[in-house]
Amino acid sequence: MNIEELSFAERFNGISGSAIREIFKLIARPDMISFAGGNPSPSALPDETAAEISRQVLEKDGKRILQYGATEGYPPFLESLKPYAEATVGCELPSVLPTSGSTQGMDLLCKALINPGDVILVENPSFIGNLQCMRLYQARPVGVESDDDGLIPEALEEAIRFHHPRILYVIPNFQNPTGRTLSVERRRVIAEMASRYGVIVAEDDPYRDLRYCGQDLPSIKSFDRDGWVVFLGSFSKIVSPGLRVGYMAGHPALIRKCVIGKQSSDLHTPNLNQAVIDQFLRRNLLPDHILKIRKEYSVQLQAMLKELEALPEGFRFTRPEGGLFIWMECPEGMDCLKLLQQAVEKRVAYVPGTHFYPEGGHLNTLRLNFSNSSVDQIHSGMQALREVLLQACC
Amino acid sequence: MNIEELSFAERFNGISGSAIREIFKLIARPDMISFAGGNPSPSALPDETAAEISRQVLEKDGKRILQYGATEGYPPFLESLKPYAEATVGCELPSVLPTSGSTQGMDLLCKALINPGDVILVENPSFIGNLQCMRLYQARPVGVESDDDGLIPEALEEAIRFHHPRILYVIPNFQNPTGRTLSVERRRVIAEMASRYGVIVAEDDPYRDLRYCGQDLPSIKSFDRDGWVVFLGSFSKIVSPGLRVGYMAGHPALIRKCVIGKQSSDLHTPNLNQAVIDQFLRRNLLPDHILKIRKEYSVQLQAMLKELEALPEGFRFTRPEGGLFIWMECPEGMDCLKLLQQAVEKRVAYVPGTHFYPEGGHLNTLRLNFSNSSVDQIHSGMQALREVLLQACC
Repeated sequence: MNIEELSFAERFNGISGSAIREIFKLIARPDMISFAGGNPSPSALPDETAAEISRQVLEKDGKRILQYGATEGYPPFLESLKPYAEATVGCELPSVLPTSGSTQGMDLLCKALINPGDVILVENPSFIGNLQCMRLYQARPVGVESDDDGLIPEALEEAIRFHHPRILYVIPNFQNPTGRTLSVERRRVIAEMASRYGVIVAEDDPYRDLRYCGQDLPSIKSFDRDGWVVFLGSFSKIVSPGLRVGYMAGHPALIRKCVIGKQSSDLHTPNLNQAVIDQFLRRNLLPDHILKIRKEYSVQLQAMLKELEALPEGFRFTRPEGGLFIWMECPEGMDCLKLLQQAVEKRVAYVPGTHFYPEGGHLNTLRLNFSNSSVDQIHSGMQALREVLLQACC
Repeated sequence: MNIEELSFAERFNGISGSAIREIFKLIARPDMISFAGGNPSPSALPDETAAEISRQVLEKDGKRILQYGATEGYPPFLESLKPYAEATVGCELPSVLPTSGSTQGMDLLCKALINPGDVILVENPSFIGNLQCMRLYQARPVGVESDDDGLIPEALEEAIRFHHPRILYVIPNFQNPTGRTLSVERRRVIAEMASRYGVIVAEDDPYRDLRYCGQDLPSIKSFDRDGWVVFLGSFSKIVSPGLRVGYMAGHPALIRKCVIGKQSSDLHTPNLNQAVIDQFLRRNLLPDHILKIRKEYSVQLQAMLKELEALPEGFRFTRPEGGLFIWMECPEGMDCLKLLQQAVEKRVAYVPGTHFYPEGGHLNTLRLNFSNSSVDQIHSGMQALREVLLQACC
């Protein structure tokens, strides 16, 4: 039989791979100014500290670190992670599981809960990577309307009653891709609705610590009395995405299913990576490091906002209080998917907004990242981008 | 709604988690002699070298290592992995993907190929971890009879014609759990059958380098002309299982689906872990390290075989030429599942063989590991085990 005739599993029907990861390949040239990724700034990556810590943990506990570990986590990390996560989330967490990035947290949650055809409600637009994850479980992501305060409760309740979703996926702080933050009152309402209707809330919160103004808001999980909210935490934006360490916290029965799912996904998150993050927590290195990152990103955000203000009326953009992204809506009729090619020719890149909508469309939108470009790059990149946009619109 | 009423996805029906991982928890006491796991010996874990290498790679390429990486792999590792894998497998490999342990390789293969109800043929008995992986994809593992030369071709062909399997899963060298090795002629036949019937062969080969006598045999993949064989490689037994680095090599169209599946599993295998293994390859550290491990394990294997020879007729066991495991069949009627409790009370542990059979049964079998116990521990542990077995049998 000819291998070309090989058929793949149904879950791949209509799946063509991450659009963002494909854009990365297109723009992998040194002279490109990329507002496309969600990469931390190189200066935010603590390479020297990580080098020293890696050596030390392997010298001290190398035999255990290099041996098979428990799926439930590397014991010293579990000790430091629990209080850290509880302080972050703002409530007691009976069951915390280290994951291979919060990407794996979402994957395990779908593995535990989703049958083909199940609906997952998401913000409209939402994080493209997790939309693909949902689709590979043959779930149907359905967008719920949002405004500047995040998900609109009336729209959410209607969607829950109509679709009977298994999961509501929400990024409460500085949402990806819009940069919007969910209001406190709505967080409370969402936790109550989850419990009333029996919907698991996946609260994905990788940007929480990257706040440049305003006040920290309590997590949705902190309003959760009955265990319907699962918190997905990440060290990707505050230590390193390349180490692939995150965690998930939720009801013990659900986390137990995730542990079983993880046994055959990757057996366990590598001990070395857990040990490195463990030392960042034990040595209390995060607060100073986060202050440093915030300062830097805040300047970059302001620089990009200033450039955006030079655009004529008709171009709208969000003014995030934190995170990594600004969201733009160009005048109706503009096609930011097509324009990307022209932008790339001028050595500047973004992600077309259409990719973030479960139903596509919204061709006049785009996402800009400011954390991975210097202020100078932001100036010249935004100038190039403005030229492309203005030429297309007028 | 009460969270206790939460239902889980159908894939978890009948899944209770890895029996081996549960046994690990039972026997986690310092005075236990464990023949249960598949753990490398602590002395085989190169902690000092790994400490030095980790520091060096982070000092030299830390910014890239800590940043997001490509799903396809950390570029320097891809450079060293390809020639290494080709030398290991014994043929050109157009498409090689680093994975988070070979566990993830099997997971991605199921993700790419399996629809619920599909049959996967396996050796009878087979590796318990991957049986669970198959079941979580709602595949039906079906055992094919083996003898001392591995899978029996006539039985295999009959099973292929009857079941129309999507995948044949086989561990050709020093199989887990039996320690048996597939003969060269059968390897050739299996590659031909795969192509004739359109069955993907998953050739899982973590023990290849742990050969203590006899000659290396060519891989099944080396007989594959049309791309039906996927090779799953691992560094767990020759460098470290805790680092979670393996690889898979197969037809580019299939590996491409695995890349897309991996994007939402864990995005990428952590760069640091790939960089560490990369240095083991670049510095050519494996040959000497493997020689050292082989020497040690060979002595342990001989010690265990000698202890087994002291058992009366009626107890049969394999005499592996390599790997980590010896397989035992006790007289009919004995229940090694029940006896485990008595063995644990005498401070010795094994894995009941029944767990390795897709259909269960075979209660008179058990698996013994010799790599993770000293010769002294093997003497006293086997003495205790003999007492338990002889008391139960006579």
